[in-house]
Amino acid sequence: MKVFLAQQNYHIGNFESNTNKIIQAISNAKNEKADLIVFSELAICGYPPRDFLYFEDFVNQAMKHIDKIAMAADGIAVLVGAPHINTEAKGKRLFNAAYFLAEKEIKQIVHKTCLPTYDVFDENRYFESSKSWNVIKWKGKSIAVTICEDIWNVGDHPLYSFCPMDMMIDQQPDVMINLSASPFDYTHIEDRKAILKENVKKYNLPIFYCNAVGSQTEIIFDGNSMVFDKHGNICGSLKRFEEDYQGFYLNDDGSIEEAIIEKNEAIRSEELNPIVFTPNLNIELIYEALVLGIKDYFQKMGFKKAIIGSSGGIDSAVTLAIATKALGAENVNAILMPSEFSSDHSVDDAVLLSKHLNNPYNIIPIKNVYDSFLTSLEPLFNDLPFGLAEENIQSRSRGNLLMAIANKFGYILLNTSNKSELATGYGTLYGDMAGGIGVLGDCYKLQVYELAKYINLEKEIIPNNIISKAPSAELRPNQKDADSLPDYAVLDSILYQYIEQVKSPEEIKKMGNDSMLVDRILHLVNSNEYKRNQFCPVIRISPKAFGVGRRMPIVAKYL
Amino acid sequence: MKVFLAQQNYHIGNFESNTNKIIQAISNAKNEKADLIVFSELAICGYPPRDFLYFEDFVNQAMKHIDKIAMAADGIAVLVGAPHINTEAKGKRLFNAAYFLAEKEIKQIVHKTCLPTYDVFDENRYFESSKSWNVIKWKGKSIAVTICEDIWNVGDHPLYSFCPMDMMIDQQPDVMINLSASPFDYTHIEDRKAILKENVKKYNLPIFYCNAVGSQTEIIFDGNSMVFDKHGNICGSLKRFEEDYQGFYLNDDGSIEEAIIEKNEAIRSEELNPIVFTPNLNIELIYEALVLGIKDYFQKMGFKKAIIGSSGGIDSAVTLAIATKALGAENVNAILMPSEFSSDHSVDDAVLLSKHLNNPYNIIPIKNVYDSFLTSLEPLFNDLPFGLAEENIQSRSRGNLLMAIANKFGYILLNTSNKSELATGYGTLYGDMAGGIGVLGDCYKLQVYELAKYINLEKEIIPNNIISKAPSAELRPNQKDADSLPDYAVLDSILYQYIEQVKSPEEIKKMGNDSMLVDRILHLVNSNEYKRNQFCPVIRISPKAFGVGRRMPIVAKYL
Repeated sequence: MKVFLAQQNYHIGNFESNTNKIIQAISNAKNEKADLIVFSELAICGYPPRDFLYFEDFVNQAMKHIDKIAMAADGIAVLVGAPHINTEAKGKRLFNAAYFLAEKEIKQIVHKTCLPTYDVFDENRYFESSKSWNVIKWKGKSIAVTICEDIWNVGDHPLYSFCPMDMMIDQQPDVMINLSASPFDYTHIEDRKAILKENVKKYNLPIFYCNAVGSQTEIIFDGNSMVFDKHGNICGSLKRFEEDYQGFYLNDDGSIEEAIIEKNEAIRSEELNPIVFTPNLNIELIYEALVLGIKDYFQKMGFKKAIIGSSGGIDSAVTLAIATKALGAENVNAILMPSEFSSDHSVDDAVLLSKHLNNPYNIIPIKNVYDSFLTSLEPLFNDLPFGLAEENIQSRSRGNLLMAIANKFGYILLNTSNKSELATGYGTLYGDMAGGIGVLGDCYKLQVYELAKYINLEKEIIPNNIISKAPSAELRPNQKDADSLPDYAVLDSILYQYIEQVKSPEEIKKMGNDSMLVDRILHLVNSNEYKRNQFCPVIRISPKAFGVGRRMPIVAKYL
Repeated sequence: MKVFLAQQNYHIGNFESNTNKIIQAISNAKNEKADLIVFSELAICGYPPRDFLYFEDFVNQAMKHIDKIAMAADGIAVLVGAPHINTEAKGKRLFNAAYFLAEKEIKQIVHKTCLPTYDVFDENRYFESSKSWNVIKWKGKSIAVTICEDIWNVGDHPLYSFCPMDMMIDQQPDVMINLSASPFDYTHIEDRKAILKENVKKYNLPIFYCNAVGSQTEIIFDGNSMVFDKHGNICGSLKRFEEDYQGFYLNDDGSIEEAIIEKNEAIRSEELNPIVFTPNLNIELIYEALVLGIKDYFQKMGFKKAIIGSSGGIDSAVTLAIATKALGAENVNAILMPSEFSSDHSVDDAVLLSKHLNNPYNIIPIKNVYDSFLTSLEPLFNDLPFGLAEENIQSRSRGNLLMAIANKFGYILLNTSNKSELATGYGTLYGDMAGGIGVLGDCYKLQVYELAKYINLEKEIIPNNIISKAPSAELRPNQKDADSLPDYAVLDSILYQYIEQVKSPEEIKKMGNDSMLVDRILHLVNSNEYKRNQFCPVIRISPKAFGVGRRMPIVAKYL
C-alpha cells in the first residue's frame, strides 16, 4: 500500500481555499499512484477554530466541503480531519473527527478520544469523546486511526480514562495513522518523536504521523510529519515550518520502503523541559518559528507591509531583522523617534541597522508632541515633579505616531516587547505595548540576545553597539533597565521558574535566589496581568506563552 | 436540623481574607445554634481561580486554610468549597470539591461530577470528574451534596454522562445541598429557579442552594441563594448582589420552617432566552450588576478613584452616572476634551451632567496636541487628504491625556465603549478603547438608552439632550454614527442574533434583514476580533459577552 502524507498550511474558516488545497494534493497523490492520502487534524476548517465551532453554519460548511472532497476520493482513499455532529441525546454537540473517504463516499468516521484541555487547547469546550473504536479496512490492511492527543495517553500518569489504541489492538491492526495539529515550542521537538516511538514499541506497529504546518495567530505548527517502521526506525520525516508532501510504501511485513535508518534515541530526554533556563536552546528553530509567525500572520490577514518603532535597542533591532526576513526589507518601515532623553548613539545605531538590512526608515523627533501634552496638562499637573506619567506620555506619543502612520499607509505595527518586560509590566499600555502582533513576546531578554547573535552569525547585521550597550527605555535622563529591574540573567531565570516551571516562591528561593527579590518579581508578574490582558497576541515559541495558554484572573491577590 | 446559608464575596487568591470571612460566619452561625453552615463553590480561593490552580503552592495554601477552618468546625458542621488533589494515577491533578468539616476534622470530601467547559467556564482544564457518589450523614439526616453544574444535568439533552443525584438517590437522602458559583446574566435569573424546582420535583427532596456573590474581574455573581421544600415551594431566598446570611429549620417531614409560599411557576420560561432582542429586559438588574461590577473591581484591586472621558454623548453619560453610584461622586473625575469638531452642546451637556451628578470635572481642549501630531507627521503625510488616521489621532490624543492624568493622580480609567461599537469595530484602539474595565462593553446601544431612562426614572440626571440627540463620534465635521452604521435598532438586533443566538447569515436574512447589510455587519464583527482582543475586560451582563466567554481566532476567514 502506498501512503501519501500531505502536510499543509490551512487558513481558519477559509473552507474554499483549504478544500482546494486538499483536492490539489489528492490529485497529485493519484498521479503518484498512492492508495491513501492522509491530511492533518481539522484540516477542513483549520486548527484551532475556537468558538466558530458554536456556529451551526460553520460546521455545516465544513460538512459541505467534506462532501466536495469525497467526490475527489476516486481511485484513492482519503483521511482528513473535520468536525462531526454528535447525534446522541447526551453530551457535547460535536466530535473532533477523521473522515475516511473512498469511492466518492464517506466510508467511515473516527472520533477523537483524548481531548486536550490545557495550555492553548480547549477541546472539551466543543467536543465529546469517542465512545467506540473501530479499525478501517482498506486494500487488505487494517488501519488504526487516531487523532493527535489520542497517542499521547501513555506513560505512568495518563490524563484520560480511555486510550484508543488499547481499545483497537484486539482488532489486530496492521498500521497506525495519526492526524495531528501539534504546535511548536522549543522543548516539544524531541518529545513528539519519543511519543511516536513509545507507541510503536507498545503496539509493535508502524506509524504514519501527519502534522499541520503554519501559524494561526499566535500558535505555530511546525509540521515535521514522520513515519516509523514497527521497529521504531524513522523512515522519513517531512520539512519543518513548510508545507511538504511525501509518499511511502508500506510493505506486507510492516516494513516501510526507502527507510532512512537512524540510531535509536533515548525516550523523552530530560533535557527537553530543562529545569534551568537555557537561553540558547534551539535558538535557530525559534528564529525560524518567528519568521513563519510573521509571514503567515500577514499572508492570512491579507497584509503586506509592517512598521516598527526602531529605538536603537536590542528588541527593536532583532524584531526588525526578523521582520525583513519574513516580509522582505522593502516592506518593513522603521520609524526612529528620538526624544531629549535619547542618547546620541541611539539614532546612529538604528540608522546603521536599517542600512545593513536595507529597509526604509524615517526619523520623527517627538519633542513637539511631548511638549504639547505637557502644555495641555499644565493646568492639572501644575508644578508636580517629573515622573511616571511623563515617561508614559513619551512612550504613548511614539505609539500614537506609529499608529497614525500605520493607519495612513496601511502598515501593521509590529510590537517589539520581550517576555521579560511583559512579565514584569515594564512597558507602557498604548505606548510601546501597542501593535498587531508581538514578535518577541514569548522570548526572554536573554533569548533576544541569543537571537541577535544568531542573526549576526555570518556578518554584523545588528550593529555590535546595540548588542553590547546597557539596555534602557531612555524615558528619563541616564535611565537604565538595571535601575528598575535586576540583572536579566537573574530575572529571566526567576521568571522561567515561575512561568514555565510553575514553581512556588519558596522553591525559587531555595534555588539560591534572593528572597525579597523573588517576592518582588512574582508580585510584579501577578499584578501586571491587567496589562498583558490588553496586549496583542504573541508568537508562541515556549511551552508556556502569555496569552491564550495562560489564563489568570486580573482581580486577584496571590503573592 | 438548622441549616445556615452563607452567601459571601471572596477575593481570588486572598486566602487569609476569605478564610477570616468564612470563620466569622461560622462563629455567627454557632451563636444562632445552627447544625450546619453552607458556603459556596471554591469559597476558599474564590471562583474562578483559573491558571493559579496549576501552581502546587496555590493549591497547598488552599489546603492549609481548609485545616484552619476545620478547627472552627466545632459544635457545628461546615460545607465549604475548595480544590482537592487527585491521588489516582490517571486523570487531571485536581478535583473541584466540597469539604464536609465537623468535630475539628475533615470528615468527608465530595467531588464535582459535571465540569462546565463552555462560555466563561474552563473546569475541564483543571479538574477531574467525580467517579464515586456518597451521601453525608449528619445529625440523623442523609445529605446529598452537589456542586453547581451537578444539578444542571437534567432535561432531554444532558451534557454529561453522569448525573450525581441519580447516583445517590438509592442511598435515600433526606435533603439536597448545592454549593454554587453561578454567574449573573440578564436571562439567567428564572432559569436557575427552574432548574432547582426541576431537581426538587425529580428527586422529591428539599434543596438548599448556596451561591457566591460579588464581581470577579468581568464576571458578576449575583448571589440570590435559595431554599425549596420538597413540594417545590420557595422557602426563602437571599439578597441579590449583596452578601447575605440566613438560617432555616429543616423538619423531619422534609418541610422547611418560615416558608414563604410562592405560586408555582412554569419551568424554564421561553421568555428567558428571548429569540428577539429585548433592550429593556431586566434593565434594573443590569444596572445593579454594573454598579457591583465597578465597586468590586475597585475594592478588590485596592483602587479608589476613577476617571472618565466625558464627551456629552450617551455612553460616557451612562458610565459616569453608574460610576458615581458605585464609587461616590467625589471619586469620579470627568475630563471634557472638546476638539474643533465638537458641537457646542457637547461641552454644555457634559458640564450639566456633572452638575447633576455633583462630580468633579475638567476641560482640556485637544487642539494643541492634535496640531502637534499633524505638524510632526507632515513630512510623511504631505498633502494627503484628511481621513481615518486624523480621526484616530484625535481619539488617541484623548486616550493619552486621560492616561496621563490617571498615571499622575492614581485614577483608573473607566472605558465607555458599548457592545454595538465593540462588535463592529467602531472605535479606536488606544484611543476611546483605552481603559481598565469596560463598563458598557456588554450592553448594546439600545440597552445603554434603556439604562439612561432607568437612571432618569425619578428625575433628570442625564440631560435629556444627551438622550435625544443623534449619536456621533465628532471626529470630523457633522459626523453621525448613522453615516457608518445602520440604525441601532437594526444593528443591535442583527448583532444579537449573531452573537447571543449564534445564527447563520442565512437565518438572520430570513428574519427580514437586508442581505447585504447582514453580510457587511457579520464581516465587521469577525474582522474586528483583533481590536477586541486588546480590549480591557468588560462587565458581563448578557449570556454571551465579549472576552473570556467568546474565543475567536484572530487570523481567520469566515463570513
